[in-house]
Amino acid sequence: MNKEELNRINKNVVKIIKQDREFLIEKMAGDFEVQKKTSRRDLVTSLDKLNQKKLKEELSEVLEANFLVEEGDAANNPVSTSGLIWVIDPIDGTLNFVKQRDNFAVMIALYEDGEPLLGYIIDVVQNILIAGGPDIGVTLNGKELQQPENVSLVNGLVGLSGPMLAHNMFNFVSIQEASLGVRVIGSAGIEFMRVLLGKQVAYVSNLHPWDFAAGRALAIALDLMTTNLDGKAPNMLKSSVVLVATKKAHADILDLMD
Amino acid sequence: MNKEELNRINKNVVKIIKQDREFLIEKMAGDFEVQKKTSRRDLVTSLDKLNQKKLKEELSEVLEANFLVEEGDAANNPVSTSGLIWVIDPIDGTLNFVKQRDNFAVMIALYEDGEPLLGYIIDVVQNILIAGGPDIGVTLNGKELQQPENVSLVNGLVGLSGPMLAHNMFNFVSIQEASLGVRVIGSAGIEFMRVLLGKQVAYVSNLHPWDFAAGRALAIALDLMTTNLDGKAPNMLKSSVVLVATKKAHADILDLMD
Repeated sequence: MNKEELNRINKNVVKIIKQDREFLIEKMAGDFEVQKKTSRRDLVTSLDKLNQKKLKEELSEVLEANFLVEEGDAANNPVSTSGLIWVIDPIDGTLNFVKQRDNFAVMIALYEDGEPLLGYIIDVVQNILIAGGPDIGVTLNGKELQQPENVSLVNGLVGLSGPMLAHNMFNFVSIQEASLGVRVIGSAGIEFMRVLLGKQVAYVSNLHPWDFAAGRALAIALDLMTTNLDGKAPNMLKSSVVLVATKKAHADILDLMD
Repeated sequence: MNKEELNRINKNVVKIIKQDREFLIEKMAGDFEVQKKTSRRDLVTSLDKLNQKKLKEELSEVLEANFLVEEGDAANNPVSTSGLIWVIDPIDGTLNFVKQRDNFAVMIALYEDGEPLLGYIIDVVQNILIAGGPDIGVTLNGKELQQPENVSLVNGLVGLSGPMLAHNMFNFVSIQEASLGVRVIGSAGIEFMRVLLGKQVAYVSNLHPWDFAAGRALAIALDLMTTNLDGKAPNMLKSSVVLVATKKAHADILDLMD
């Protein structure tokens, strides 16, 4: 896709996600239904669903593409990465949304043949938007965002999944030990943001495609690594353990995973 | 101390801590020195020290009292809880301050004969101030703050120390399992705030007196529990594992610690 077309799409998606933030701020003051999905910790609200429907409609008007989305019938999600795909997480960090009314994000990404074109993460309550992609660069609330310093694990904070740390899955305790400290936020979007902004050198968790699609598009544009624990690019159609990190911290963590 | 005097002190401390926030926001944009204290994770900056000195001078003018402070010669801290004591943490979450320029707090408390009179926690970057005490009530940015709902552990998020979770100290993994999820923020002040605001049902960590003094004053005023893991009030002159929680989550966690 040429740069002119990417810029046209970008301009429209920025407008959509900023308006969507206002929509959610207004809606979250009112009542909404909460339901369990796969476990008592895996929640969905009527607002997740409503917001997904709204975003699908709005994005369809910007560009016709397939949809890979969090909420709804998984059977409707694409089985191939070929062509154009919008990836949507209408509320990332639903548990934080329900319990804190804070620390959650909306994420949108556009992929073509499995490669990231554009990514958007908005911290709804703090009103922080990171937007862009490998070909058009990245902005933080409209201003150019520089790539973060290439800091090693020993000199940085790292975001981890709480349960994976508690059970030392994949030797996570060794990451905790090697780093300056761990943080557990409860929203992949907010964790990705922290890495993109240089506040953490890495984030590792078991993620669905909609949890990492936008972050990966932005990370590539900022010269950060987003891979599985074997160092390979994550499969866009499956859940897997995903690591986003500075180049140094990425190498440090892969070493510890051996 | 009578209510009139408490209100006079409160008014002055609110003014001091709000101005102090502006001072830190300005100062953190410039250069400052970072030094290690007890370990590579335990940092102090020239700003911690400068800010402590500033706060001591300002609080002395409001009320003459002893000082129990984070930075400086521990030998100068009081050896008895009798009389009036100002407790100051000039920058709580110094690692976050250094690495994130976010997620840190200033905390001030006033104790008399070991009992909390007043407490103040300000989230510097988000500009959120919780202020007050058992006799005068609690405000959130100047508006009355109601006590949070008495939610049990199974229905809430809980803040834990990352290393203590990683090493399953005091059976922390069982707290993770029983709760809806763990969060690790890296600042006792911000964690206390989350409990005071009902965003988390509990927070447990190994804390110094200046880490919990303000939070405990505010927690008591909001009908929350702040104790050691044996259910007793923490010693104001020593470090210990401190739990702040709703009454239900407090009972749930003490049960798990048996």
